[in-house]
Amino acid sequence: MSILVVGSVALDSLETPFGTADDTVGGSAVHFSAAASLFAPVQLVGVVGDDYPVGELDFLRDRDVDLSGLETVEGESFRWKGRYTHDLSAPETLETRLGVFADFHPRIPDAFRTPDIVFLGNIDPRLQLEVLERVEKPRIVACDTMNFWIEGSRDDLLRLLERVDILMVNDGEIRQLAEDPNLFRAARWVQERGPSRLVVKKGEHGAVLFDREEIFFAPGYPLDELNDPTGAGDSFAGGFLGFLHDVDEVSSGTLRRAVVFGSALGSFAVEDFGVKRVAALRREEVAARVRELRHMTQFEVAPAAASSH
Amino acid sequence: MSILVVGSVALDSLETPFGTADDTVGGSAVHFSAAASLFAPVQLVGVVGDDYPVGELDFLRDRDVDLSGLETVEGESFRWKGRYTHDLSAPETLETRLGVFADFHPRIPDAFRTPDIVFLGNIDPRLQLEVLERVEKPRIVACDTMNFWIEGSRDDLLRLLERVDILMVNDGEIRQLAEDPNLFRAARWVQERGPSRLVVKKGEHGAVLFDREEIFFAPGYPLDELNDPTGAGDSFAGGFLGFLHDVDEVSSGTLRRAVVFGSALGSFAVEDFGVKRVAALRREEVAARVRELRHMTQFEVAPAAASSH
Repeated sequence: MSILVVGSVALDSLETPFGTADDTVGGSAVHFSAAASLFAPVQLVGVVGDDYPVGELDFLRDRDVDLSGLETVEGESFRWKGRYTHDLSAPETLETRLGVFADFHPRIPDAFRTPDIVFLGNIDPRLQLEVLERVEKPRIVACDTMNFWIEGSRDDLLRLLERVDILMVNDGEIRQLAEDPNLFRAARWVQERGPSRLVVKKGEHGAVLFDREEIFFAPGYPLDELNDPTGAGDSFAGGFLGFLHDVDEVSSGTLRRAVVFGSALGSFAVEDFGVKRVAALRREEVAARVRELRHMTQFEVAPAAASSH
Repeated sequence: MSILVVGSVALDSLETPFGTADDTVGGSAVHFSAAASLFAPVQLVGVVGDDYPVGELDFLRDRDVDLSGLETVEGESFRWKGRYTHDLSAPETLETRLGVFADFHPRIPDAFRTPDIVFLGNIDPRLQLEVLERVEKPRIVACDTMNFWIEGSRDDLLRLLERVDILMVNDGEIRQLAEDPNLFRAARWVQERGPSRLVVKKGEHGAVLFDREEIFFAPGYPLDELNDPTGAGDSFAGGFLGFLHDVDEVSSGTLRRAVVFGSALGSFAVEDFGVKRVAALRREEVAARVRELRHMTQFEVAPAAASSH
C-alpha cells in the first residue's frame, strides 16, 4: 500500500525578504513527497531534464520514496523564479521555463498501478485525468489545482472533479472556482460537483475541512519567522494524506487530525528555503507541534456557560 | 457587580451590498451593551444630542443596562455614514459628524464608580485614562482603540496601556501599534507594555487570545450571508466580557470560552443591520452557537498518531 503522487519536479529560484535560493529542488511532487514520506511509502511520477541534480533527491529515497517513476529526458528541467515581498501570501513570478515539463505525460510504472491514495499535484487537469485512467481505483483520490487551470481549463477541471474525493485548494482558488466570494457557499458548490470533502488552505489563518455536512477549523501554527512560503500547500497535502495513510481509516476523527498534521507540515515547510526544513524533519517534531496546536484550540463548554442570568 | 462601558453612542447610516440603513442606533457603547447585557448588568456612559431617538435604546433597559450615565446635551448626535463593498472587511467612511461627541468628557455617576469590569470603547486615549482615574480599580480593565489614535495619540495610548489588563483590537491595529508585520511578535511587544492579555480579532478568520505565554485560536462562525459588519468588534467584546463577568473567574479555561462567546456574538451581530440581530438574541442561541464552534474545532490526538512508521 502506498501513496502515488504525480506533479512537477522543478528547480526553484526564490527571493524573499529573508534571503535567496538558486535552483533549489522543488515542485509539487517533491514538496509533497518530502512531507508524506514521514508517514507512508510514496511513489513519485514526474519528469526532469538531463540537467537535474537528481542526487539532491536522495533524502527522499532514504525515506521510502520510490523514484522509479521519475523520468529523465533530454533537455532542460522545469525552472520557476519567484519573488515574495513582505506580504508573503502571493509571490510575483519572475520567470517560468517549462523545459521538458511542457511535453509531460505521466508514465505510470506497473508497480505504481494499485496505490491506496493518489495525490494529483497542480498540473493540467487533462493529465490528472490521464493518471486516474491508468491506475486501479484507489481508496482516496485527492487533487490540487490553481487559478491558471480554473480560468483556462474549466471544463476539464469540472470533469476531473467528478472523480475526486478530496479537493485541496486555497481560499482564493475555491472562491474563483465556484464564482462565489462566500467560502461556505463556494465549498457546497464544489461538493455538489464531486468531491464530498474539501480542504481549504488559508495560509497563516489555517485551514478548513469540509467533510460532507461537517466543518472543521484548524489554525495555522504561530511562527515568528517564515522564510519561504513556496511548497507550503504541497507539504500540507503530504502531511494530510501521509497521516491518513498511516492511520488507515477515513472517519470524521481521522480527517480532522489529518488536517492538523497538514497544518503542522505546512508550518515547518515555510521555516526554511525549499525542502530544507522538511527534509531534516523528524516525525516526533511533527507530533509535538500537533499537540501544541491541540492545546491552542481546545476549550470546554462548562455548565456555567449555559446557566441563565 | 457590573460592567461599565464608556464609548460612542451614535446614529449610523450604512450601505452594504445587501441593503442600507439610515440613522440606526449604533456606536461602540451601544453595540457592546447589547451583547454584554445578555450575560451581565451593564452601566453605560456616553453622550448624545437632543435629536437622539433615546426610546430606541429601551431594549437595553429591558436587559438591565443602566442608562443613567447617558448624557443628553443640546446639539446634534454623533453620526457616521459608511459604505461596505463586497470585501466586507473595511468600510469606506462617507461622512463623520462628531456633533456633541466632539466635546465629550465622560461623567461617571456615583453609582458607577465600583465596577467589576471596565470596557473602554474606541475613544481618545486621554478620555479612556480619565475614566480609569474616576473609578475604583476594577478587576478587569479592557480597552479597544483604532488606527486614528495609534497614529495621532501614540504617547497617550502607550500610557493608557500600562493600566490595561486586556487589549482588544484587530490584527491590522496590533501590527500597526507594534510596527511589526508578524502578529505573534507584535502581541509580545504589546504584552511587554502593560496588557498581559490580548484578544486579536481577525474578522472571518476568527480571533486569537494571547494569555500571558499561551495562545488560543477561535474560528469565526461560518456564515452564508453577512449583512452589516458594523459593530462586530464591540459585540465581540460584549460577549467576551459579559461571559467573564457571568462566570466570575479569570482563568485560562474561562478566557478561552469567553473568546468563543465573543466570536459567537460577533457572528450574530453581522447577520443584520445595526443592533437588530443582537437586540433580539436569546442567550440559548448563543450557547448553541458556542457548542457548534466547539464541535468545529475539537480533535483528539490518538495514540496512532504518535507511533513510529
